[in-house]
Amino acid sequence: MNIFVDLEMPVAALEILRAGTSGHQLLFPKTPTASVLAKAEPDPQFASAEIAFGQPDLSSIANAPRLQWIHVSSSGYTRYDTAEFRALAAERKIAFTNSAGVYQEACAVHAMSFMLAQARNLPAALSARVANATPVWNQLRSTSSTLRGETVLILGYGSIGRRLVELLQPFGMNYLAYRRTARGDENIPVVTGNQLADALHRADHVVNILPESVATKNFFDAARLAAIKPGAVFYNIGRGATVDQDALAGALRSGQLKSAWLDVTEPEPLPDGHPLYLLPNCHITPHLAGGQPREAEALVRHFVGNFQRFVRHEPLLDRVM
Amino acid sequence: MNIFVDLEMPVAALEILRAGTSGHQLLFPKTPTASVLAKAEPDPQFASAEIAFGQPDLSSIANAPRLQWIHVSSSGYTRYDTAEFRALAAERKIAFTNSAGVYQEACAVHAMSFMLAQARNLPAALSARVANATPVWNQLRSTSSTLRGETVLILGYGSIGRRLVELLQPFGMNYLAYRRTARGDENIPVVTGNQLADALHRADHVVNILPESVATKNFFDAARLAAIKPGAVFYNIGRGATVDQDALAGALRSGQLKSAWLDVTEPEPLPDGHPLYLLPNCHITPHLAGGQPREAEALVRHFVGNFQRFVRHEPLLDRVM
Repeated sequence: MNIFVDLEMPVAALEILRAGTSGHQLLFPKTPTASVLAKAEPDPQFASAEIAFGQPDLSSIANAPRLQWIHVSSSGYTRYDTAEFRALAAERKIAFTNSAGVYQEACAVHAMSFMLAQARNLPAALSARVANATPVWNQLRSTSSTLRGETVLILGYGSIGRRLVELLQPFGMNYLAYRRTARGDENIPVVTGNQLADALHRADHVVNILPESVATKNFFDAARLAAIKPGAVFYNIGRGATVDQDALAGALRSGQLKSAWLDVTEPEPLPDGHPLYLLPNCHITPHLAGGQPREAEALVRHFVGNFQRFVRHEPLLDRVM
Repeated sequence: MNIFVDLEMPVAALEILRAGTSGHQLLFPKTPTASVLAKAEPDPQFASAEIAFGQPDLSSIANAPRLQWIHVSSSGYTRYDTAEFRALAAERKIAFTNSAGVYQEACAVHAMSFMLAQARNLPAALSARVANATPVWNQLRSTSSTLRGETVLILGYGSIGRRLVELLQPFGMNYLAYRRTARGDENIPVVTGNQLADALHRADHVVNILPESVATKNFFDAARLAAIKPGAVFYNIGRGATVDQDALAGALRSGQLKSAWLDVTEPEPLPDGHPLYLLPNCHITPHLAGGQPREAEALVRHFVGNFQRFVRHEPLLDRVM
């Protein structure tokens, strides 16, 4: 089979890929992509591919008659999540998988680092050179928490959310998830539809892991942000477009939200002088949640594992469509 | 009984104390102490006390013939940990308990917040306004970790260390403890004596929770710091005096240690211009690890629980001597 691979990778990862697909043909584009998140350019070799691994160019898919399976090198797959593409994939029986399994651990740990940095007041504490028993010291100490007894609401309860709950288990929090549709197999209470407002009002920590789609665009608008319990903390490790950032800045400015921790924004990075940069209670990392050592090797291992399933006609992991 | 209480507390805590000791006499000093860590002044009322709760003045204890029990409002008890005091307490059968049970959770969570902030590169990440796929972004992403498979060595394996291991359990690390004497009931491998050098060389994370004593003064001297695995991270949530801070600054400057996270220093705070302040890989919080909401109430509840045990002649919790 021909496997079109538009993922830039170091030699170590390439060796894993070659070993795991030996006997098959790897096709690399002339113009390599810059990152796992970047959109690829069309490439003539794509037309002969049975399998695509990376971020294949959407417009090329219609002209690749032999294509059977697309494995994207990211957890998010917004650009493929359109009615047209879903119809095409369904009609031509093209399997579509993502790399969620590669990123769930790092994303959950990143969210957890945000929650603990908030709980222990790290942004203020790391710059406070104060003596014992001074007012600032008393304030920092008495507003530090252990998370025990606090409520966390997770929106978008997929593999990252589940893993986050596992990591948080020893902390003795109350856990709630929001999903469009409860599946019944969740390990924590799930709210749907108009139960969300009540859940937002009970949450001390609102962790947004929603994917980007037409349905989630500006999901956190002014009304939903206002429904969050006053003084709660808002986290976003999903996609920036799911939040009305002007409304978020307002909620942070007024103190309705105690603080926000964002790994994603719209756009990335935000332009200089953006209101969210100017708020001392808004903490932003530049889309690092999935970061891990030897990320390309992990992506390739995940793909190779799925490739071996594909060859054996076994169910693929992280299948989205 | 007369209970001498030299702990400043808000009304809510005082009410818990009064309710929990009703029928007994509370004696408050004329000069209240400023914090749970501060040393108290001598007070004439102390002479009639059977019980002392707070940070009682050492020199007053010899002149308090009825004293049966001292409960200190801290986890550390360095100023009482002398041969003279231990002899006096043994001779007069004065029980000595501390407030470890109040602080173990917050201290373990604080240590964990340090480990995760380090794992996710938060100090650099929170100030990096970088685009996807830029060199700084690639560097931040590829040096972010999930802690999985890394080794943590905990020095001083008491209640805080045990709790930290519980919190870290879902992260899939390798755990090692160092104790002067292994008790045999530890839930992770323990090293003692000259096995320490090997353990230091294997550790990616060295968490120092040693108490301050004659035996631990400058425990982390230049030689022990040099024995740590190159590129490891050093944490101190015990006492500042257990570390040779000049040697630590040297190890951070040379890159022998990747970074240090200190909640305690000697003195606190460090003087302006101290070398540890000038190192970008040294992160300091000002003795906040035990901080929690309603700390005084928690201290009083813990004391009251122990008081009720004392009255019923049951074994006291957190007994040190």
